[in-house]
Amino acid sequence: MTPDELLDAIRGGDRRALARALSIVEDERPGADLLRAAGHAARRDRKVVGVTGAPGVGKSTLVDALVAELRGRGRTVGVVAVDPSSPLSGGALLGDRLRMQRHVDDPGVFVRSMANRGRLGGLAAGVVPVLGLLGLAGFDELVVETVGVGQAEVEVAEEADTTIVVVTPGWGDDVQTAKAGLLEVADVFVVNKADRPGAAETVAELRRMLELGTASSWAPPVVSTVAVDGTGIPELVDAVERHRRHLDDTGDGDRRRRRRAAAAIRRAVDRRLRRVLDGEDYSELVAAVAEGEIAPDDAARRLVDEGGR
Amino acid sequence: MTPDELLDAIRGGDRRALARALSIVEDERPGADLLRAAGHAARRDRKVVGVTGAPGVGKSTLVDALVAELRGRGRTVGVVAVDPSSPLSGGALLGDRLRMQRHVDDPGVFVRSMANRGRLGGLAAGVVPVLGLLGLAGFDELVVETVGVGQAEVEVAEEADTTIVVVTPGWGDDVQTAKAGLLEVADVFVVNKADRPGAAETVAELRRMLELGTASSWAPPVVSTVAVDGTGIPELVDAVERHRRHLDDTGDGDRRRRRRAAAAIRRAVDRRLRRVLDGEDYSELVAAVAEGEIAPDDAARRLVDEGGR
Repeated sequence: MTPDELLDAIRGGDRRALARALSIVEDERPGADLLRAAGHAARRDRKVVGVTGAPGVGKSTLVDALVAELRGRGRTVGVVAVDPSSPLSGGALLGDRLRMQRHVDDPGVFVRSMANRGRLGGLAAGVVPVLGLLGLAGFDELVVETVGVGQAEVEVAEEADTTIVVVTPGWGDDVQTAKAGLLEVADVFVVNKADRPGAAETVAELRRMLELGTASSWAPPVVSTVAVDGTGIPELVDAVERHRRHLDDTGDGDRRRRRRAAAAIRRAVDRRLRRVLDGEDYSELVAAVAEGEIAPDDAARRLVDEGGR
Repeated sequence: MTPDELLDAIRGGDRRALARALSIVEDERPGADLLRAAGHAARRDRKVVGVTGAPGVGKSTLVDALVAELRGRGRTVGVVAVDPSSPLSGGALLGDRLRMQRHVDDPGVFVRSMANRGRLGGLAAGVVPVLGLLGLAGFDELVVETVGVGQAEVEVAEEADTTIVVVTPGWGDDVQTAKAGLLEVADVFVVNKADRPGAAETVAELRRMLELGTASSWAPPVVSTVAVDGTGIPELVDAVERHRRHLDDTGDGDRRRRRRAAAAIRRAVDRRLRRVLDGEDYSELVAAVAEGEIAPDDAARRLVDEGGR
């Protein structure tokens, strides 16, 4: 199958073709550029929901419930679950099989797990093309689930149009810096396991912190859920849809799209440089930097024009 | 103090100026480019020893003993210890105070700890300028200690001229894939805690695996050490020096230097793009990518000329 035939098959709903394309992009095999480009264009018309939070808050169960609610509203859903397990444990593969058993026979749901370690060019470089190809395959809704720790996961959160940050009752006892980071990325807050003691206090504290927070025109709502029985999930999806309207109405959506585009360009440049710097064309430049004759920053200036075009 | 005055002070042995320069580069404050460039040139004449291995193998103790041996040979030593602790735990700061107490009053030793999470542009982007500034400050030997897990740490290992991989007796029982990764980066193997049962077997298995290994012209030696009492440390330093002569004699050193230069250029381009893509000059390009009109890979081709110069 040529890349073009593969693209047609994906657009036609062929799941095996989709899985094959995902592998080609992940392994940077021939055709990866074309598939990535097609996915990039397809993603433009899709909204991505990010779900993040510390381990143990019930993210996977929440995503499962979210998928069920979206399906109930007639939407098809593609999910990327970034598994923080070490590549040694085989966590990602295991996850694919164990999670979301109830959607396993539903052709309107597709789940792809990825390990987040040892990935060339960072986590976002792996996740973004997958989102694009899921969009190309026609899924209405795209969901990406990450564990909310570290820069890599924040970068993935930035790929979402709406980021849901999940906490549990008692979150008020956590370390302050972790809170600040999560507050920054949250468009919607979820207090999950809200049938446990302290839920009301956590909601109240979150609201208090959010009032002190940014001068943004969007005030992140706080939704209480019990993901295991579906409590609060319709309200959560409603909150996501309100946020989307806000993005469309205010221009915030365009700003996010441009920020994501800039990040995508940077990743593409890095990919390109990984290839071309090994070649003949730039051998003198590499040698000059290797000998300490010119600084890497000067080489960068020569590679990327001062002027722009 | 202007950046130039700061550079003079660092070259003159002013430790406070060094610490200040390190902070400027870490926080990307004004003057960072100049300091990085000066460090890049200085690093050319320094050999870097990398020390890596799983948690608990005694890396810090080994580095401590290595520093003592190098000092005994009349060399001054700058150490970068990459602390895998979460930024939440404050591990890096704590490490600075606790580690290497016995060198605390020795002006010929300087230790800088860094956390490895949440760093913009990856771990190597943080470590490399620090190595450069330590070189500029006149330290004869540069040592970088990392925990041997994940891509980020492999990238740091690639910044070293000689990478020491530390294991302990019983390593033979570990997961196979982890071994393969460590075998790939190792120039010198250390079996530390060699007074424990199973040391001879581990040494034998390592040698067997290394024989099956790469077709490289350098056969990594296996050195047994007991870092807490200094056993085997002189032999370890001898092995490092043999490896350095090998690098000089065979051209392997030049090849490594060029690979590092290419990586440094890629990081510098990314740094540059983080700035310029926000500006006016590239706003049309970013908008076109944001709207899905052109693919990030095409934008990258426009930014970095096909032809080279």
